[in-house]
Amino acid sequence: MTYCCALRLKDGLVFVSDTRTNAGVDHISVFRKLYTFGVEGERFISIQTSGNLATTQAVISHLSNHLELRQEPNLYSVNTMFEIAELVGQTLRKVISDITADTDEHNNYSCSLLLGGQIKGADMQLYNIYSQGNFINATEDTPYFQIGESKYGKPILDRALVYEMPLDEAVRCCLISFDSTLRSNVSVGMPLDTIVYKKDSLHIPNGKRIYEEDPYFRQLSKQWSDTLRRGVQELPIPTNDYLE
Amino acid sequence: MTYCCALRLKDGLVFVSDTRTNAGVDHISVFRKLYTFGVEGERFISIQTSGNLATTQAVISHLSNHLELRQEPNLYSVNTMFEIAELVGQTLRKVISDITADTDEHNNYSCSLLLGGQIKGADMQLYNIYSQGNFINATEDTPYFQIGESKYGKPILDRALVYEMPLDEAVRCCLISFDSTLRSNVSVGMPLDTIVYKKDSLHIPNGKRIYEEDPYFRQLSKQWSDTLRRGVQELPIPTNDYLE
Repeated sequence: MTYCCALRLKDGLVFVSDTRTNAGVDHISVFRKLYTFGVEGERFISIQTSGNLATTQAVISHLSNHLELRQEPNLYSVNTMFEIAELVGQTLRKVISDITADTDEHNNYSCSLLLGGQIKGADMQLYNIYSQGNFINATEDTPYFQIGESKYGKPILDRALVYEMPLDEAVRCCLISFDSTLRSNVSVGMPLDTIVYKKDSLHIPNGKRIYEEDPYFRQLSKQWSDTLRRGVQELPIPTNDYLE
Repeated sequence: MTYCCALRLKDGLVFVSDTRTNAGVDHISVFRKLYTFGVEGERFISIQTSGNLATTQAVISHLSNHLELRQEPNLYSVNTMFEIAELVGQTLRKVISDITADTDEHNNYSCSLLLGGQIKGADMQLYNIYSQGNFINATEDTPYFQIGESKYGKPILDRALVYEMPLDEAVRCCLISFDSTLRSNVSVGMPLDTIVYKKDSLHIPNGKRIYEEDPYFRQLSKQWSDTLRRGVQELPIPTNDYLE
């Protein structure tokens, strides 16, 4: 399984992905699921992947290959984030239709992608791209998307995240969402890859890979456990009719 | 969908169930999924149901019918909680095998049950009973079971719940687990049914139905949102390498 989360907020974009893949519980590997592309000062693009690993790697490879061979259209030749979303969606659709030409088992090869970024002179965008190649766009009302094993980490996002949240706070919120998922589901695993993009910077961030022993992440996780335990204790005591 | 949660703790048993059933988003109803049986001073039995409503209602009706007609074995005639679990499991299996006699679609009729209780002179027990009629037993290591839409509400249980937790705190912990689920998934809905059973009381509790406007639950939910928001703000600020 996989868990990827992406935010489009007032001040920028945040992307966090785990790196665990599994084909059965005895076949677990570490694979990157967060990719960045871009031209410094002109465009920044991030793609996160969930689902069949052969499919998602093929999509990324086709997109990279086009860039390398300067075949158009490619991620750097089209003019808007919308056109990039269309290009990624079409690439995904072609990969799946090629591999399933002789079978009906489309679901086995399906995947989801999150695409975020900004092109000079235009707004930041964040898309959730489906296996069929179509997509939806994040808004101020719904400033985040999740793909993969998303349920464990959804409550904290639904409850704490708002469009106006500063980026450093949003990163903490995302990391808590991941920590909750890591604790409740072994198919999502460390290390985590994070990217924070500041609005209008048009800078390609290095990002940070967070390993299991990362002191900041450990501190975050411990403090969050304390917050929840203390939070439950401080809740008002149920009235007697709850206990009768 | 459904969400049911049951705890077997040092001091007693806690059961919470929602009441929403849906067959499509335009066919939503309120049905009780938490049933109690018992003989005051002798035995207390609670059953929670998730899955196909016709199946779970048939199981409860068969068990009740046997009691009414004094047909043995029944919930009051067998001697241990283990035998009650076997009886419930066999009843469930028979209901499903009868309905699927002419079809292969076993999954459409499947369900899960949580069975908890105590018989005089023996320990409290909590079982998770599968569609096949077999079951597992809660332990001190794993003092809770969930059935139905369980993922949203799992992180708080994994993080805050311990076997030694007092019952009034465990109730709060469960209600937070439900509140998180209610906010993130519309297929789980109010009112909620709660039962708290005190160890060795052998008393059949009335339980409490919590409606949407319940002032205690509203206060709990609001305070929890504040706890999470403040908790995120108070987390240590990420080091610069997270943001580059």
